Amino acid sequence: MYQGVASHSGGFPHDHGFLARLRPRAGLLVGLMIFQSCSSFILASYEPLLRRHPVLVFFMTMLVGAGGNAGNQAAVLVIRGIATGDITPRSQLAYVGGEARVALALSALMVAVGLARVLLFGYSLLDALAIGTSLFAIVTSSVVVGASLPILIQRLGFDPAHAGATIQVIMDLAGVLITCLVGSFVLSTDGEVTSARTG
Amino acid sequence: MYQGVASHSGGFPHDHGFLARLRPRAGLLVGLMIFQSCSSFILASYEPLLRRHPVLVFFMTMLVGAGGNAGNQAAVLVIRGIATGDITPRSQLAYVGGEARVALALSALMVAVGLARVLLFGYSLLDALAIGTSLFAIVTSSVVVGASLPILIQRLGFDPAHAGATIQVIMDLAGVLITCLVGSFVLSTDGEVTSARTG
Repeated sequence: MYQGVASHSGGFPHDHGFLARLRPRAGLLVGLMIFQSCSSFILASYEPLLRRHPVLVFFMTMLVGAGGNAGNQAAVLVIRGIATGDITPRSQLAYVGGEARVALALSALMVAVGLARVLLFGYSLLDALAIGTSLFAIVTSSVVVGASLPILIQRLGFDPAHAGATIQVIMDLAGVLITCLVGSFVLSTDGEVTSARTG
Repeated sequence: MYQGVASHSGGFPHDHGFLARLRPRAGLLVGLMIFQSCSSFILASYEPLLRRHPVLVFFMTMLVGAGGNAGNQAAVLVIRGIATGDITPRSQLAYVGGEARVALALSALMVAVGLARVLLFGYSLLDALAIGTSLFAIVTSSVVVGASLPILIQRLGFDPAHAGATIQVIMDLAGVLITCLVGSFVLSTDGEVTSARTG
C-alpha cells in the first residue's frame, strides 16, 4: 500500500541495514506530514469562526476520521475488485455509479447517528446542523472519490493499491476544508455578531 | 482489512443487493465514528488551553495524521512479514525491538521537519517546542504500538490484517490526547497568565 514499502519487494526489511529499513519509510512519512500540515493554513484562516464555535474543533477529529475511513473502505473494495477481475474497464462506470448510491445511504445513516451524538451531549440544534451537514458532505465525497481513485490511478499506469493511503490523506485536507466551509455557512458568524450587538 | 469487507468473502459485493452491499460497511463506519467522536470529550476538556494556544488546533490534523500514517505503515510491514513467514513467534520480539529503534529515528527526523515547518511560518519557539514534542511522542508510540498490534491480534486468534485500520483509529484518539497533554505541559497556561498580569 505504501510506495516506500513496495520498494522493499526484494526482501524482508529486517535483513537490510538499519538505514535501508529507515530511509524509504521516512521519505513517505515526511512527505505525507508536509502535505497534511497544509491543513494548518485552512484552520488558521478560519480562526475567528473556530473561536466562536468550538464545537467545530471538538468534532473535527471525528469528521476527518469518518471521511478517511469511508474513503479507504470504498478504495479497498475497488482495489480488491480490480485484483480479482470483478471490476473490469467495462463495468467500472456502473460500479462507481452504484457507489454513489451507497455513498448517499451511508452518509444518511452516519449523519443520523452523528446528529444524535452531538445533540445528546448538549450542543445546540445549529451546532448539530453544522456537524451533520459537514459529515454528509465529507462521507459522500470520500466514498465516491475513494471508489474512483484506484480506477484513476490504474489508468495513469500506477498500482491501484496506492489509493488506500492516498484517499485518507486527501480526506484529511478535504475534511478540514469542508468543515470550515459548511461551519461558516451554517453558523454564519456575522449574524451572531450582529445579534450579540443588538441583544 | 475491514471486518465488514472480509465478511463478503463469498463473492463480489456488487452481486448482492443494495442492502447487502451497504449493511456490513455501515456497521463498521458507524462504530469507528462513535469511537472517534470520543476525541470531542478530550478536546472540550482542554478548551481553555486550545483557546489560548490556537497553534495546537492548527496543527492537530497534521499531528494526528502523522501518527496514523506511521502506525499504519509499521503495522502493514508486520502483517506482510507474518503472512510471508518472515516474522515468526521466535523472531517477533527482536523485530519489535528493532522497530523501537526505527521509531526513535523516524520521530527525530519528522520532528526536525515539523519544527522547521512551524518556525518558518512565524510561530513562537515555545509553540514549536509543543508541536515538536507532541510529534515525537505520537510518532514513537504509534510505530511501536503499530508494530506490536498485528502480533497481539494474531495471538488473540484474530486476523492480524485488522491491525492496519485499528492502529489508525487508536492514534486518532491517542494523538489528540498526547497533543493536549504535551501542550498543557509545555505551554503551561498558568505561567503565561501570570506573566501577562505582571508584564
